[in-house]
Amino acid sequence: MNAVLHNIRIVLVNTTHPGNIGAAARAMKNMGLRDLVVVAPHDFPSREASDRAAGARDLLATVRVVDTFEEAIAGCGLVIGSSARQRRIPWPLLDARRCCQQACAEARQHRVALVFGREDRGLTNEELARCHLHVNIPADEAYSSLNLGMAVQVIAYELRMAALDGTLPDDAMADWDKPAADAATLERLFEHFEETLVDLGFLPANAPKQMMTRLRRLVLRARPDEVEVNILRGILRSAQVAAGTRKLGQENT
Amino acid sequence: MNAVLHNIRIVLVNTTHPGNIGAAARAMKNMGLRDLVVVAPHDFPSREASDRAAGARDLLATVRVVDTFEEAIAGCGLVIGSSARQRRIPWPLLDARRCCQQACAEARQHRVALVFGREDRGLTNEELARCHLHVNIPADEAYSSLNLGMAVQVIAYELRMAALDGTLPDDAMADWDKPAADAATLERLFEHFEETLVDLGFLPANAPKQMMTRLRRLVLRARPDEVEVNILRGILRSAQVAAGTRKLGQENT
Repeated sequence: MNAVLHNIRIVLVNTTHPGNIGAAARAMKNMGLRDLVVVAPHDFPSREASDRAAGARDLLATVRVVDTFEEAIAGCGLVIGSSARQRRIPWPLLDARRCCQQACAEARQHRVALVFGREDRGLTNEELARCHLHVNIPADEAYSSLNLGMAVQVIAYELRMAALDGTLPDDAMADWDKPAADAATLERLFEHFEETLVDLGFLPANAPKQMMTRLRRLVLRARPDEVEVNILRGILRSAQVAAGTRKLGQENT
Repeated sequence: MNAVLHNIRIVLVNTTHPGNIGAAARAMKNMGLRDLVVVAPHDFPSREASDRAAGARDLLATVRVVDTFEEAIAGCGLVIGSSARQRRIPWPLLDARRCCQQACAEARQHRVALVFGREDRGLTNEELARCHLHVNIPADEAYSSLNLGMAVQVIAYELRMAALDGTLPDDAMADWDKPAADAATLERLFEHFEETLVDLGFLPANAPKQMMTRLRRLVLRARPDEVEVNILRGILRSAQVAAGTRKLGQENT
């Protein structure tokens, strides 16, 4: 994954606020990118850039400063320009997710540049006409202008997600530390639960099943692990002791 | 889509730097979110928050400031806490994309809170234990600490993408202004192309087909529209006039 991300260059053109260069460097390092080129920045290097870079000052120290757009994209087989809106002459345009998927796919073969324009007016039409592809972050039309550092963060994040390519777990309990309780263990829990509720006088011995069905549904939805089942059964035993239907230390049948 | 996003609350707990509150407000408005609650911020309202909010000062003016975590999540049917790392006791945990898909799905039914902790140490274990679910932005292990505003931006972006749910075009040329050239139009272009290359002496009349195959492949890959084909044929006509094989103004056969 890192080899792919290291083959992707972020280019910032004519950045006005040095803080945005620092923020971009941090966003890039957070996401595993490292090739940052700035074209004719207004104020760089700068203290503000270092402050905003935080733990990415090492990346900031390796930034290449060049004079022209052409130098910045030299050697790149795919050049993608960020574009806030559709131009008069339409250009191939993808949203950030699809664009970053394509960028990662191509970065296995050649260097890819993602180019960001000025804070106030983005890339010029001439610069956009030097790009193979334009990328758009689908923002709300009511206020679609993202801060430059934020735009780099979203793209860097999508590049990393594309490089991770489905390797993240789907399941919220994927990294659980204990094995899930199996069916027989859960059945013993439910029997013990019902017995205890009768012992406590909470359920009559000839209770309708609806209460236990609701409790089953709740417990099954939580997907308890073995340790959690043991905790619940310990609580049930304590309740039985309190109810006088079980002696302290008496094992389950 | 907006109704779903308006049912999702962003909560910032004990924020130290007011600029991050402003940055979060801007990120939210960019992505169509509007419910921002801050718990006991160190310095808010503040000039710095307003500056960073930029065009989202209206959202900033509606921020609710509360004293406790409980007030902030009041009325929410799903509470999600951002967590940089796995805790000693594992908790249901999803990456930003899957988590935001679940948040949007549930926001059709009830209010959802996404809670972000302090700049330096996130949410406490006690706060995380009040959440149904934890969310993690899969950053590079070498430097996984995102700026707070950036983390809100990534989550807000993923919430919007989940709310857009596949409505964005897959095709880079989806919003093209001219119809694609059809097969017969392209065949006439290739015939004209070959004829012109012979007229120019670039190809011998009995040329091998390989050159035309390469030109076909190039043109077909570009998926030209009707206007582009007309431009190319106009250029070919000009070349034929220059070569003396066509009179100025002579129509195609």
